[in-house]
This record gives sequence, C-alpha cells and structure tokens, in this order.
Amino acid sequence: MRPVAVDSNGADGGPDLVAEGARLAGTPVELFGGEEITGDEDPALAVRGKPDASVVRAAKAVGAGEAAALVSAGATGALLAASLFHVKRIRGVHRPAIAVLLPLPGRPVLLLDAGANVDVRPDHLVQFAYMGAAFMEAVYGVARPRVGLLSIGEESKKGTDDVVAAHEQLAGGPLKFAGNVEGTDVTAGTVDVVVTDGFTGNVALKLMEGTAKTVGTAVREAIRSGFASSLGGLLVRGRLARLREQLDPNTTGGAILLGVRRPVVVAHGKSNAEGIANAVRLARRAADEDMVERTAAALAEGGALRSAPAASFAASHD
Amino acid sequence: MRPVAVDSNGADGGPDLVAEGARLAGTPVELFGGEEITGDEDPALAVRGKPDASVVRAAKAVGAGEAAALVSAGATGALLAASLFHVKRIRGVHRPAIAVLLPLPGRPVLLLDAGANVDVRPDHLVQFAYMGAAFMEAVYGVARPRVGLLSIGEESKKGTDDVVAAHEQLAGGPLKFAGNVEGTDVTAGTVDVVVTDGFTGNVALKLMEGTAKTVGTAVREAIRSGFASSLGGLLVRGRLARLREQLDPNTTGGAILLGVRRPVVVAHGKSNAEGIANAVRLARRAADEDMVERTAAALAEGGALRSAPAASFAASHD
Repeated sequence: MRPVAVDSNGADGGPDLVAEGARLAGTPVELFGGEEITGDEDPALAVRGKPDASVVRAAKAVGAGEAAALVSAGATGALLAASLFHVKRIRGVHRPAIAVLLPLPGRPVLLLDAGANVDVRPDHLVQFAYMGAAFMEAVYGVARPRVGLLSIGEESKKGTDDVVAAHEQLAGGPLKFAGNVEGTDVTAGTVDVVVTDGFTGNVALKLMEGTAKTVGTAVREAIRSGFASSLGGLLVRGRLARLREQLDPNTTGGAILLGVRRPVVVAHGKSNAEGIANAVRLARRAADEDMVERTAAALAEGGALRSAPAASFAASHD
Repeated sequence: MRPVAVDSNGADGGPDLVAEGARLAGTPVELFGGEEITGDEDPALAVRGKPDASVVRAAKAVGAGEAAALVSAGATGALLAASLFHVKRIRGVHRPAIAVLLPLPGRPVLLLDAGANVDVRPDHLVQFAYMGAAFMEAVYGVARPRVGLLSIGEESKKGTDDVVAAHEQLAGGPLKFAGNVEGTDVTAGTVDVVVTDGFTGNVALKLMEGTAKTVGTAVREAIRSGFASSLGGLLVRGRLARLREQLDPNTTGGAILLGVRRPVVVAHGKSNAEGIANAVRLARRAADEDMVERTAAALAEGGALRSAPAASFAASHD
C-alpha cells in the first residue's frame, strides 16, 4: 500500500506532534521534513523557489505516484500552490476548490469553495457542485447527495448574475440539484453540499465559527450569572463538554482540496495529534474510495469539464 | 411634531397588531391603510402601478414632508422601491443600503448592506461605510465609530478586486477605518460597523441566524439528554429565556434603509406589537437626531458623494 505523504511542518504543535498524529492514524505514512513555507510568503514564488521545502517534497512524491495522498497542516496557500504545480489538476478542471465538512450536530454538510478562489465564473461554480457531490458520495457514502447553490433567495433568478447562470446550468444536469439555498439552510441540513465562491465561503465559515463561539459564551455566562443557574451549570457542564467535542474541527479531519489528481487534505494549524490522525485517515479513505476517479467521471457525466475530454485524468499536464 | 408614517400592512400579525405597536411607541404616528404589495410582485412595477397601496401612500406622505420618517413591516423590495421613488435618495448617493443592527450580547454591531444591492462597485462600498458610521454616531451615540470592510484576510490586498479598491479609498478618508475584518470579527465586536455587498451581507445575516439557532438547539438537547442535566436544564431555563430575549430581533427595532432623504425603517414581518413599537421609536430617534443631514455631511466630508456637491440634500431630484 502506498503511503500517505505528510508534511512535518506547519502545525502549531510542531513536527513532533505531526509525527505522533501520523503514527496514531494506523495507516502507512511517509513524513517529509525540510524548510517550512509560511503564510507570510507569496505561495507561488515560495513553492517555485524552495524545492526542498517540506510541502514541496511531499507534493512531488504524490505527483510522482510514490504516495497515494497528501496531508499538510501548513499554510493553505503554499499547499494549494504545491498541489497545483506537482499533484496537478484533473484534466478539464478550471480551478481546484477547498471543501470543508461542517461539524454540525447530526448530518455533516460540505461547504465549498472555502477560500481558494476569490473571483469565480459560473463554470467554476458548476464544477464545484460536481466535485463536492463526488466527495460526499465516495468518502462519506452519501448516495445521490443533495447539492444547493448558496444565494439570497430560493427563486432561480435570485443572486448575482454568476449565481443565476450557474443555477441554470446545474438545473439541467444529472446532479441532485436542490436549487438555491440561503444562509439559514446551511446549518439546517437541507442539503449535503453547499456551493459558493471562495470569498462568500470563507466569510461564511468564519461567521459560523464566530457566531457559535459568541452564543456558546453567552450561554455559559447566562448559566454562571446566578446561584440557581450556577448549580445548573455545574450539572450541564459534562453535556456541554461533549457538545463542544462534537463541534471541534479536529474531529472532522480538516478541509480537502478537490479537483486535483490525488487527495490533498488541509489539516488545521491548531490540530492536536488526533486532529492530524483524522486528517491522514481522511486522505487514506479518499484514496481507497477512488474519490479522484469518481470526481472525474461525475464531471464528465455532467458535461462540466472544460473541453469535455474523456473521463481519464491521468494523461493531462495542462 | 410631524408624525412617523406607518404602513398598516405587512406584519404577520395583521393591521391590528401594527396599530397596537404604533400606539405603544409613545410618539405621534400616522397609520396608512390600503392595498398591500406582497413579496411575490415585482417591486418597481407594483409601486408604480398601485398608487393607493399602503406603503406607497406612506412613502408619499414622507416625501411630501407631511411625516418625519417611514416604517413598514411589509415586503422589503416594495418598501425599497417606494422609498426610492417617493422619499428619494440623498443627492450624490449611488444606492441606498439596508443596515441591520446585530443583536449581539454587549455592544451592537451594524452590518450593511444586508441585501438591497446584489452587485456593487467600490464607490458603493465606500458610501455604505460613511452611511453606516453616521447612523451609529447619530442614532446610537457612538463617537467616531470603527468601520471594518468584510473580507477574507486582514491584509489590505485580501479579497475581491472591488473590496481591495474600496479599502484603498477608505484608508485615505476621515473615517475611523479599521481595515478589513473577517467573519469571526463580526460577532467579536472588533468594530462598530461592518461594510459588505448585499449578497455577502444577506448570506451572512442568515448564516448567523441559522448558526445561533443550531447551537441553541444543540445546547438544549445536550441539557435534556440525561437525568442530571435535565435537572440542570430546569434550573438554567430562566437564564436561557432571558438570553433569547437579548438576541431577539424584535428588541432592536428592525433594519434601516440608509441613503434616502428621511429615515426609513424595515420592520420584521414576524414583529410582535413591541417590535413594531421599537421600529417606530428607531425611526423617531433617527429623525430627531438629524441622521440624514449628518449622513450627507459625512459623505461630503469624506469626498464620497457621486459628484461631490454641497452637503445639502433637500433640493435634488435625481
């Protein structure tokens, strides 16, 4: 079994924590050390200029077929650039997208793009929809995932011109397209996949994080602020701790880069060892379940590839 | 004292609830009855075609100077169109924006645009910034409000091209500009005003609503799901009820339309009588505090008006 390539750098806990997490994953891994590319550098320049950086070495191993998938807790921009240069896009894919599995209580929801593409065209949004659906089907076993397009009203004509155009293309395709969804639907579990541009997606993710934190703090303060409720607070503390665990990003294994030729997992910089292990397990599952091949096939079936080539993804170098 | 013009239609509770809320407000009001324009109609066509609709009659009274401000719990699109046609824009303002005061625990935060303008140019975002700051200063007494531009990173070059261009214009102006803010900053109270386009703003508001609801439900379920914590739940119930009240949109008085020549308040369709009363009080306070005049002066001082005319707003009919 080919190993999962793991970038030793980038986690706040340092390379020792990454090594510990990789070991905990219980699957063959190969750790790549070397220079670290930080978030302060221009990603494309840094990846080109530092061939011995850990993330570049790991991406090259994946691109060369020596490793089955890639995991890094380092700077997202550097991982994205290294993946574009060395793992490469699936033939016919305009832009890879970052997908995040929202740790909602109950059924998880995939949101993409979470920030890889600030400005997108309708064709990009359409590809994100097929890529997200293929991921949920291959990796989470969701049969015919329901896909929604994030907008400001349910009607097909609501939203920006690009959103309206993407809606039109998706409505005619083989995808189980649920139409436009609004902000309230994201957390309500109306759909399995929420598609949006990288600007809105990134703002959305951070808003949810901030809101959850604010409400959680307000609840704790409400509990603390009186005698009777202090007693109550003591009693519910165990339950709230379990809830926080459920909402903890460490448990989902991190974001995934979709649209490239091997699974690439963006682990959270704040990951603990278990978080790294979950990221490695996610990468392994995506490789074992042929996520990339199924993504290429779904894009081809939907007529969503750039120049409508065959479903093969292995021969292209564009 | 000129009355606040109140549209009798549009609230889920019907005209009787609106009348009751208007009475509770404790300030002179004039109620306008007539045909209702619903959210299913094209707003501009409906406003032009139905001169006797309640929202049109109320807007005309405000435009003619017979009333000091306008309140409606009806369809937002119709209120926006009626305000554009009959209350009219402040001279030099490109587009009015809908501003929502987020009912966060502690210090409130104003978010605009919440959905009036799906596609915006940098100049529009710059005007929203001055309009929002003037509102917080005039109506909420916030001296030199801190204004943030919603984006996907704090650095000035992060975001869409339009956001980057707006950032550049705002950085040079007299506003207390805090630069880019991210989703997590919105609820953290880092700034007093958050500026964004109407697409992102509308998605953001509904996401916060959905997330707050989901977290609240999860907390309640966590409390209910065991014996010890059921007892705890009983004890904290009173505290949680008070917290929900604090987060209740009825208590803030609704959204406000900025950039037109008189205060216009968008009351929530789900308002109870107290919600309508708070909307009327908000309209009254905005009129008493010369919000519109101060907005026009702030836009002029910042050089943000369309053709940089004098700060006067009363003589234009463009």
